[in-house]
Amino acid sequence: MRTLTLDLGRRSYPIFIGRDVLARRDLYSPYLDGAQVLVVTNEVVAPLYLDAVLAALDGYDVNVQVIPDGEQTKTLATFQSLLDTAVSRRMARDSAIIALGGGVVGDVAGFAAACFQRGVRFVQIPTTLLAQVDSSVGGKTAVNHPGAKNMIGAFHQPVCVIADTATLDTLPERELAAGLAEVVKYGLIRDPEFFAWIERNANALRGRDPEALAYAVERSCRNKAQVVGEDERESGARALLNLGHTFGHAIEAGLGYGQWLHGEAVAAGMCMAGDLSVRMGWFDAAELDRTCDLLSRLGLPTRAPAALSAAAMRELMGFDKKVRGGRLRLVLLRGIGAAELTATFDAAALDETLASWRQEKG
Amino acid sequence: MRTLTLDLGRRSYPIFIGRDVLARRDLYSPYLDGAQVLVVTNEVVAPLYLDAVLAALDGYDVNVQVIPDGEQTKTLATFQSLLDTAVSRRMARDSAIIALGGGVVGDVAGFAAACFQRGVRFVQIPTTLLAQVDSSVGGKTAVNHPGAKNMIGAFHQPVCVIADTATLDTLPERELAAGLAEVVKYGLIRDPEFFAWIERNANALRGRDPEALAYAVERSCRNKAQVVGEDERESGARALLNLGHTFGHAIEAGLGYGQWLHGEAVAAGMCMAGDLSVRMGWFDAAELDRTCDLLSRLGLPTRAPAALSAAAMRELMGFDKKVRGGRLRLVLLRGIGAAELTATFDAAALDETLASWRQEKG
Repeated sequence: MRTLTLDLGRRSYPIFIGRDVLARRDLYSPYLDGAQVLVVTNEVVAPLYLDAVLAALDGYDVNVQVIPDGEQTKTLATFQSLLDTAVSRRMARDSAIIALGGGVVGDVAGFAAACFQRGVRFVQIPTTLLAQVDSSVGGKTAVNHPGAKNMIGAFHQPVCVIADTATLDTLPERELAAGLAEVVKYGLIRDPEFFAWIERNANALRGRDPEALAYAVERSCRNKAQVVGEDERESGARALLNLGHTFGHAIEAGLGYGQWLHGEAVAAGMCMAGDLSVRMGWFDAAELDRTCDLLSRLGLPTRAPAALSAAAMRELMGFDKKVRGGRLRLVLLRGIGAAELTATFDAAALDETLASWRQEKG
Repeated sequence: MRTLTLDLGRRSYPIFIGRDVLARRDLYSPYLDGAQVLVVTNEVVAPLYLDAVLAALDGYDVNVQVIPDGEQTKTLATFQSLLDTAVSRRMARDSAIIALGGGVVGDVAGFAAACFQRGVRFVQIPTTLLAQVDSSVGGKTAVNHPGAKNMIGAFHQPVCVIADTATLDTLPERELAAGLAEVVKYGLIRDPEFFAWIERNANALRGRDPEALAYAVERSCRNKAQVVGEDERESGARALLNLGHTFGHAIEAGLGYGQWLHGEAVAAGMCMAGDLSVRMGWFDAAELDRTCDLLSRLGLPTRAPAALSAAAMRELMGFDKKVRGGRLRLVLLRGIGAAELTATFDAAALDETLASWRQEKG
């Protein structure tokens, strides 16, 4: 097992990474205060890992709430149902909410933990690659509004993250690939050595080589922890973690949540950000090719879906959390390993990217 | 105009207190970042003060949402309707939400400001005495769950508080008295000189003497700001501000929200906490008499409503945010000006207080 620390002063917390760690009672007990625990999971993950987690929590007063799988579940209605459970079970301020699952479970359970009694303890047990390398670390919680992704939420840091890499054995191939999109993102925005490592190990990662996956999780978490430790509330460098996300959120909202996985939309979005960066002279065409080739080898889309018009995407991008003072801001690339947030991108070039960087009609 | 500062380091903010200050544009503009503003108010306050606020916001892109008056409005449904407005108007991350009204408006609008895009700027314009002396200062936001008051919320500090004491001229008498309950609370828990001042000025306060009210608002805010500045997240001294509130919340939830005003329930709750403190030998009977006499002179109830059984109150008190490790914790009095949070109160004495400290059946 490896232990990383996200350094936030008094609110610092450990990230435990290893095989079979979710069954280890000693990783929970130091971080729980009261006896009451609400475990939130989904109908896919529950049959696989819930028993092991409950065994590790033996002696606690545990309630379990199983929610449906998928992005469509990440709503205020689900948030409210978790709070109804917490209230009806009379959970106290020293109780804890544990998220066992992927990004959706973590985001909605984390938002409930942020708001129940104005904040209770929260433990993340991410069981997808995407959640292990990205969403479980850093304290962003949210639900979607029908009009926009992650529009309602809070910053609420967990007390610990338990990333069990053995859970990746059961992950569907498409979800594994979606997680690798965020792994590639760390290479692109700040870690060129890691990018080159992913290029060399793409086949091992797709083939679920345990050592390769464990290394990818650890190095991704290390990157994320550094960025969040320096800029918890996203007033600066943390925004770079959104490379590809403004494009990607437009794809997700435009197709309807759950059509493309978040990581798939981000993969296409990173290529679109790269194409716009090339058009602006910031990024080499050869670097864009490397980026798209790698994502493609990992089984990911590299262009916007044909079903979504350029006009619809442009409209959806205008309502993104990175809009400030009425201006859209985008994360663009200056090179592999170098990203920049800018409001002064070339609007005509953006229109060209949106019009041309699309999949063929199938 | 007087300006106090709530000292929270980087997140410090001013509290402006004076007559007609809500119309002063110079008190808003330094604290707004983007052009978009959502003003949340209610149907009673809007006809009185909305025009003056809108005039002060001339040039901003202002939306207004008017919600019904009363504690019954403080729900997740209202919270959601505010977020629907913010999303449909495409409000950006640099927009602001302004609460114009009493504690209900401030609590629900503040919770929306805490969660929209994970937090946008928030301005409080409290128009009731209760909101001016208590709820607008300190960053607690919340909505009620049908089962329990303020059970869903967030800590989200405003960027400024504009307390216009001229708004107290139009306040119904019952609401004025309810606000005075929280004023007396500051005297009871930490400021015995202020308690004595209130005793001497009770008639002036009930008669709305402007200077007396302005002094009461300022000294109350000063007390609140000191406590919150030392303990923002209520890990210690801030809990003393809840004197009478565990009893009071049980009264509010037991009768149904809106039957008794919050300040009325707190007044009765403070006397009940005082009675329990006397039974435990912590507090003099003469001090309890002084407390009840003062609250009574201010037009406030001093006993639990006859309609609510002692058993029902005891049950409701078991689900309070101050329950920790399964133990109810109560704020009790050691003297006028000295309060203490304790989990080791005398349970039999609590039952006696609940059974005996009740209004006559009417």
